[in-house]
Amino acid sequence: MPEWRKDPILDRWVVIATERGKRPTDFKLPPEEKKGGECPLCQGHEWQTPPEVLSFREQDSPRNKPGWWVRVVPNKFPALRIEGRAGERCLGLQRVMDGVGAHEVVVETTDHNRPLEEQNEHQIREVIRAWRDRTLDLRRDKRFRYIQIFKNHGGPAGASLDHPHSQIMSLPMVPGVIREKLQRLAGHARATGQCLVCGMISQELQEQNRVVDANDSFLALAPFASRVPFETWIIPREHQPDFGQIREDQVAGLASLTRAVIGKIELALGSAPYNLMINTSPVNGDQEDQKHFHWHLEILPRLTTAAGFELGTGFYINPTPPEMAAHDLRETAVVFDGRQASKNEEVGKYV
Amino acid sequence: MPEWRKDPILDRWVVIATERGKRPTDFKLPPEEKKGGECPLCQGHEWQTPPEVLSFREQDSPRNKPGWWVRVVPNKFPALRIEGRAGERCLGLQRVMDGVGAHEVVVETTDHNRPLEEQNEHQIREVIRAWRDRTLDLRRDKRFRYIQIFKNHGGPAGASLDHPHSQIMSLPMVPGVIREKLQRLAGHARATGQCLVCGMISQELQEQNRVVDANDSFLALAPFASRVPFETWIIPREHQPDFGQIREDQVAGLASLTRAVIGKIELALGSAPYNLMINTSPVNGDQEDQKHFHWHLEILPRLTTAAGFELGTGFYINPTPPEMAAHDLRETAVVFDGRQASKNEEVGKYV
Repeated sequence: MPEWRKDPILDRWVVIATERGKRPTDFKLPPEEKKGGECPLCQGHEWQTPPEVLSFREQDSPRNKPGWWVRVVPNKFPALRIEGRAGERCLGLQRVMDGVGAHEVVVETTDHNRPLEEQNEHQIREVIRAWRDRTLDLRRDKRFRYIQIFKNHGGPAGASLDHPHSQIMSLPMVPGVIREKLQRLAGHARATGQCLVCGMISQELQEQNRVVDANDSFLALAPFASRVPFETWIIPREHQPDFGQIREDQVAGLASLTRAVIGKIELALGSAPYNLMINTSPVNGDQEDQKHFHWHLEILPRLTTAAGFELGTGFYINPTPPEMAAHDLRETAVVFDGRQASKNEEVGKYV
Repeated sequence: MPEWRKDPILDRWVVIATERGKRPTDFKLPPEEKKGGECPLCQGHEWQTPPEVLSFREQDSPRNKPGWWVRVVPNKFPALRIEGRAGERCLGLQRVMDGVGAHEVVVETTDHNRPLEEQNEHQIREVIRAWRDRTLDLRRDKRFRYIQIFKNHGGPAGASLDHPHSQIMSLPMVPGVIREKLQRLAGHARATGQCLVCGMISQELQEQNRVVDANDSFLALAPFASRVPFETWIIPREHQPDFGQIREDQVAGLASLTRAVIGKIELALGSAPYNLMINTSPVNGDQEDQKHFHWHLEILPRLTTAAGFELGTGFYINPTPPEMAAHDLRETAVVFDGRQASKNEEVGKYV
């Protein structure tokens, strides 16, 4: 019997095919062709991008020259522009606004061919610090109400460049899905005195069957109402509304778990395209409200095609039960730096 | 300058790239390989599907045998099942429900290789009548609250069979996007005494620049906040909440305009994959509320990839302004049955 499952926060239902769940080998992924040609994100090509807004680089190396290991630049073809006014105007019944916003590219490494999960942990920490530093800087512009950090890996996930990179966009409005989530989390907290996500973490650690991996500061799990096969969320175990608040000890924990989870997904599925998004509190809004958010990082492998049903309803049909996905990912042992990371047994000590 | 545009009803924003808009020739569509093999939807293979729930067929021809021209069967691999209870159960903080629902396939023709827009108008009318008759029958089951009619054309749009077909799913809950739309339409109607969609139709007919085509009963337009290039909506010109209420004279108008619009899209873009969805009132709910809906049909060509930004925010980046898309589709003259249909000049008489 298939099952309808509801996201614990949003009014978003998913059909889970519980009977004949699709395993990793059921998803045929043709090998992706490399795009070739000159790469504007490679070292030595700094002049091919707009001037950098942040870089972690060798002391005394000049900006916009080699010597960096993480570099953030405005998108050369930005969807949004910094100039303009954030106010809505009416055109009859229609609403319109200048296309204000920031659109930046985080170059995650100088190594064109080494994906994020194959970087060493120090490098991944630096990428996370770049995300954090940019989100803290961008919100100083009070026109912006939400900052979306995301990564598209592989052509079917929308990546137009092979070089490992992520993107940051700041928006002059709060996306509906984030506002709805904040409303429901704030409502739950006011009614019960507790955070719904914190409660969910306790329940998941107790039930264990959807836990993918864990460490002292973060939990990786296949969410109960997973939209797509092998969807995985990485959630801070303590209540923290805003990704921008991440501390140095948490940066290390997030780097280690992100590397392990993406490593497991790529190994189990054989180089899967995926989207990674950070789901976090709005900025420049009501602090009393925003403190009820609980940020997390979402990884959605792109193995299925959202079609008329998904576009029409906003609901999803997922052929892989998250319990099965979590089991398969737990059993996938990734080896980093010569040692096996996140063995199944190690997860046990956190649950 | 790019532009933020808001859907007139939903809180859904879209970034429209107004500067360097992408024209049809900018979308490179590789020719799609046919899937080959035995087709379970072809005439003579009726035994390969579950028994039909509706067919339009030659008088005295036996059910589940040849002699039909439109045939509706339950999906052989349904995402949902008719059996079960529609009530929510709690699993700690999680909500779950039996996977109840109907999932049917509308076989649109016996001709495996002739897509919908190449059928004659009588055949397309019969497809629309099959949609209508099934939605009226399915709602008799009071467990169902929404019926989603949709069509996936082409592999990139999620079609798994080449044979022209559409699908119908009935759901035990109202999708969030439909509930939000109904709330806003009902709120607007109570505040102003008018339907927001009816008002939008007047405005679009006056401004003309987003009108793709029109006839006495329907208007085809590129919506102001189009999510994807060449998105086109077909809207009944009179206020009609529910697709199930469509009259015979409207069936003819919808058939003619649907054929013209899909014909234009396929001709302009060179055989584009697309999703088609009917967006309509919930069923078995509050009649006083539901009467404020205004149903329409949406066609979304699949030329771009929804990626981390879209998945994270629910907003879209559209590289083709709808005014440009509407212009290009108006200029695309489709020839049916030896005569040119929906010439640009003919649209003029409706605006």
